[in-house]
Amino acid sequence: MSKKNFKETLKKVDQFKIDEDTNIVELIKSLKNTGFNAKRLALACEIYKEMIIDEECIKFFGLAGALVPVGLQRIIYDFIAEGFIDVLVTTGANLTHDLAEALGYHHLQGSIDINGINDEVLHSEEINRIYDVFMPNKVYERIEDFISKIKIPDNQMSVSSFLSYLGSQLPKTSYSILRICYDKEIPIFCPAFTDSGLAMQLGFHYQNLNLNHFKDMLKMVNIAWDAKTAGVCILGGGVPKNFIMQSLQFCPNSATYAIQITMDRPEPGGLSGASLREAISWGKISEKAKYSTIISDVTIALPLLFWYLKKIKK
Amino acid sequence: MSKKNFKETLKKVDQFKIDEDTNIVELIKSLKNTGFNAKRLALACEIYKEMIIDEECIKFFGLAGALVPVGLQRIIYDFIAEGFIDVLVTTGANLTHDLAEALGYHHLQGSIDINGINDEVLHSEEINRIYDVFMPNKVYERIEDFISKIKIPDNQMSVSSFLSYLGSQLPKTSYSILRICYDKEIPIFCPAFTDSGLAMQLGFHYQNLNLNHFKDMLKMVNIAWDAKTAGVCILGGGVPKNFIMQSLQFCPNSATYAIQITMDRPEPGGLSGASLREAISWGKISEKAKYSTIISDVTIALPLLFWYLKKIKK
Amino acid sequence: MSKKNFKETLKKVDQFKIDEDTNIVELIKSLKNTGFNAKRLALACEIYKEMIIDEECIKFFGLAGALVPVGLQRIIYDFIAEGFIDVLVTTGANLTHDLAEALGYHHLQGSIDINGINDEVLHSEEINRIYDVFMPNKVYERIEDFISKIKIPDNQMSVSSFLSYLGSQLPKTSYSILRICYDKEIPIFCPAFTDSGLAMQLGFHYQNLNLNHFKDMLKMVNIAWDAKTAGVCILGGGVPKNFIMQSLQFCPNSATYAIQITMDRPEPGGLSGASLREAISWGKISEKAKYSTIISDVTIALPLLFWYLKKIKK
Amino acid sequence: MSKKNFKETLKKVDQFKIDEDTNIVELIKSLKNTGFNAKRLALACEIYKEMIIDEECIKFFGLAGALVPVGLQRIIYDFIAEGFIDVLVTTGANLTHDLAEALGYHHLQGSIDINGINDEVLHSEEINRIYDVFMPNKVYERIEDFISKIKIPDNQMSVSSFLSYLGSQLPKTSYSILRICYDKEIPIFCPAFTDSGLAMQLGFHYQNLNLNHFKDMLKMVNIAWDAKTAGVCILGGGVPKNFIMQSLQFCPNSATYAIQITMDRPEPGGLSGASLREAISWGKISEKAKYSTIISDVTIALPLLFWYLKKIKK
Repeated sequence: MSKKNFKETLKKVDQFKIDEDTNIVELIKSLKNTGFNAKRLALACEIYKEMIIDEECIKFFGLAGALVPVGLQRIIYDFIAEGFIDVLVTTGANLTHDLAEALGYHHLQGSIDINGINDEVLHSEEINRIYDVFMPNKVYERIEDFISKIKIPDNQMSVSSFLSYLGSQLPKTSYSILRICYDKEIPIFCPAFTDSGLAMQLGFHYQNLNLNHFKDMLKMVNIAWDAKTAGVCILGGGVPKNFIMQSLQFCPNSATYAIQITMDRPEPGGLSGASLREAISWGKISEKAKYSTIISDVTIALPLLFWYLKKIKK
Repeated sequence: MSKKNFKETLKKVDQFKIDEDTNIVELIKSLKNTGFNAKRLALACEIYKEMIIDEECIKFFGLAGALVPVGLQRIIYDFIAEGFIDVLVTTGANLTHDLAEALGYHHLQGSIDINGINDEVLHSEEINRIYDVFMPNKVYERIEDFISKIKIPDNQMSVSSFLSYLGSQLPKTSYSILRICYDKEIPIFCPAFTDSGLAMQLGFHYQNLNLNHFKDMLKMVNIAWDAKTAGVCILGGGVPKNFIMQSLQFCPNSATYAIQITMDRPEPGGLSGASLREAISWGKISEKAKYSTIISDVTIALPLLFWYLKKIKK
Repeated sequence: MSKKNFKETLKKVDQFKIDEDTNIVELIKSLKNTGFNAKRLALACEIYKEMIIDEECIKFFGLAGALVPVGLQRIIYDFIAEGFIDVLVTTGANLTHDLAEALGYHHLQGSIDINGINDEVLHSEEINRIYDVFMPNKVYERIEDFISKIKIPDNQMSVSSFLSYLGSQLPKTSYSILRICYDKEIPIFCPAFTDSGLAMQLGFHYQNLNLNHFKDMLKMVNIAWDAKTAGVCILGGGVPKNFIMQSLQFCPNSATYAIQITMDRPEPGGLSGASLREAISWGKISEKAKYSTIISDVTIALPLLFWYLKKIKK
Repeated sequence: MSKKNFKETLKKVDQFKIDEDTNIVELIKSLKNTGFNAKRLALACEIYKEMIIDEECIKFFGLAGALVPVGLQRIIYDFIAEGFIDVLVTTGANLTHDLAEALGYHHLQGSIDINGINDEVLHSEEINRIYDVFMPNKVYERIEDFISKIKIPDNQMSVSSFLSYLGSQLPKTSYSILRICYDKEIPIFCPAFTDSGLAMQLGFHYQNLNLNHFKDMLKMVNIAWDAKTAGVCILGGGVPKNFIMQSLQFCPNSATYAIQITMDRPEPGGLSGASLREAISWGKISEKAKYSTIISDVTIALPLLFWYLKKIKK
């Protein structure tokens, strides 16, 4: 781009105001005219909106971090219920915690600053800590009860097929991610499934279990291959990010839309914090893609993103 | 606290939902029942609300980071206009940029990802970059014009008195922080004033200028000393944080309320990222204080905080 | 601990010096008497030293991040060759890149600041970028050649058994992690194996492949179960961290030693950045454990750790 | 740069080894052939070496963060003693702590993980906490004794002249930064001097004190103006970074060499974390400059940098 052209792309920063009439859509519109992460958030909102409007777009959604324990289960449930997600890739931990909530148990919140409360005491009390969220160990016992009673259709079925089966066994009235994905026929991929409490319970009870991970890997590649248009939204990073990205290399047009919300940064070189731009070199994201990385705790940025999408959909 | 007591303090994490009726006050209420930074944001909203309701509370506000260039000038202006700030401590850069906007110039926003646009080209085009916000160098020339025409009442006046005078010279119709602070008689402290483009222009034009920094230091200590109740809200960290904190050591009850929004972290040991808890050891914050640090870009968290305060005030 | 006792635990910070006679062991000793991350690094060096001296200690090692591409393959190779690792848990990416190096290909380094070089150009040149490290796409073609010629002993063998077989097929003269683990009979666990270029090549060529992940999960639990003493060193975080940690819950004494080198932080609640203290609540790390988290790029801290261990071993 | 040229700039990543003969110079040489922050550290070492060899280079050094409390006083002292610094810009806090050490008092280190030790207790014990470093409050009393006895030559002298005078009053045998700067006639600039415990003691005792900050600002601009070649090394960020940078705009050739060691990042838009590239747009750093930002805790990277410089100087 020539010097002259660049200057013409610059726009005035609006010193926006917030008043009694402000709503989420207007706030995001205002943030679009700023910079730093506020602008990135606004850009992400617009990009996701386009992903929804674009009927050909297959929407990949990556889920890492303790999002169910912290209270975002319902938001993710609603992303799926609203049709904002076509393919879900997640850590096993979020499925384990989703199952716990579906079975009627709850996570707890508390201050980690209270004097004299420490991890040694928590251990003796059998309360597991996830930063400032807590889960009594007994929840695992109830998961075990549940797991011990299911009838696994096939020891060699793919992980995603098993997760779909698992969803079918959960109460329809719950706000379970597993259940809504079953109901809406949204595949759940979990490439590191054995890295979870849920899989450990399964392994202990069904010693011959060999859920197929390779079938899922190929299925995911095929979904990407068949996608005329692909969009991706990554919460956190980790395996869900990489698994979506490696598949998008096989999408004829690569991803056209890309969003990541993360606290990870590019400089240490890990994939979690890698810029979305970098994915262009790999052919994972298209040169013409619209993309935005928001450096933010997901717990703050995701509700805003959903609120915006919900409001504009109405 | 005994084991039993701690368990009783734990509360259920609500898997909150967002729907058509959600407003900012309800969203913050929902986030209060989660964890991680979402909960910290909700806590900060509640704490600031209490600071406002508590009529004896002197509200100290620290401003670091390029908040005016990025588009938060009006939000900060409204914090002052609404009576949410009693004492402002800022970097000189924000005052320089505030002056630029007050004089009718604007900051620009643009993508830093556009191919072929780089800092070498920007330099030859005389456009200064602040991450993805831009300011033509010629703005400084206009600041210089303005500075060359003012009549400094006293070469040895305190920095805060000078800033008050400067505010009085700016158009009442602007959304200038300098102007609204003058109008509302809110002192502005700027302990590193000579570390700014504004001070450089002053220094070049008024070679005998020796604005008094020590007077301000003592004035600030006296304000803290006289405060029956003190509350503090820090954006970023840096000198504004430390300057407020060192003064609060002289507040008889230390700070009763404390909020910080920052991306800095405690581990490298700098004051910017130091936990608010640490300030208790120094007597800067009270043992009984309510406090919350939000690890977030200010550009995302501050508009939410203001939106909440504005809404509950109505 | 009583007030009096705490005061007695405080030690003088030494204002250490570096001179001509300084060596790595003395430097680390000096850093022990400081604070912040320097002290954490020194503590980690001491802890790893104890792990090595303690003959009963099973040393778990977690490997996440692009450590082979960046040039740490030989350091990790030597960790294994020296006997500093008993169980390796890794991402699939590091194995893919290890294979590339073992087959004679190289990663490249370059500046990401050079004007006019961008990811679109890299894509058209078929050069994949990993921050400031680069890998020509053709390397994958050679991996494919290699993969197409191997004879997989059993389509349902465990991932770790397969990786051991793969190591046996590589040149003994290379500094391959896969090879040295085969030679030294060190098991490699890769719970998210299908999240890698290597696994994709395998999947494309061997459509009936269903390497068993559950067997590895149980094998890992058994190793932890049998360990009288356990020590853990985590580079980065991610699946390797969680997989080691979930297994350590079954270690009778939990981990006695724990080290993590990472740029991730606790506040966003993810497991990667979770403090090692938190793992005490889960019974993954012992209440009596010695542990240290270093907030540092692995590329800086790991060579220092290895250098120290190598020197004291002599 | 053309496509072909870029490819030619790429170099092989060496899988370096560490053995018995490794020394710091060879380690840095090895790290040069890697990527991520290790390579940035190696680059910084080379750049500083060039700054020292280049006899025309004026070496600006910015000091932010609690570097004296944590144990780096002697390293910084030796940077000055060795002639590696020509102009020092610092926070007031480091000077306050330097004075404390010069007067014979010490900082303490301790674990912040010990159960039951908390900031409330520390406050009642009058021990101030700086992450995991501690300072008894009584140190301030002794600083007060010292301050009450000095004879300030001129109430309106510049801050840097005052600091030089202060250095002259300290024992020659100490490893005080203030003292060595006096001895070597290295100016110390402290633009936010009144934001420090030292300045508060001065203000309380000498009510008419009005140390001149503007004179220093102009002096600093003149030093930059006169520099044929300028090099800059920033520890942390904050006011010292900005104060050096704003002056370098007046250096005819801008900075030719630039190094920053920091944990701050560019995305939130603050100057502390701004990339060194960005400074090119402002004319602070030359288009032709060699520069390197190391994302690292200063406590780890600075000793390595000094060790390297000391070794190659020999």
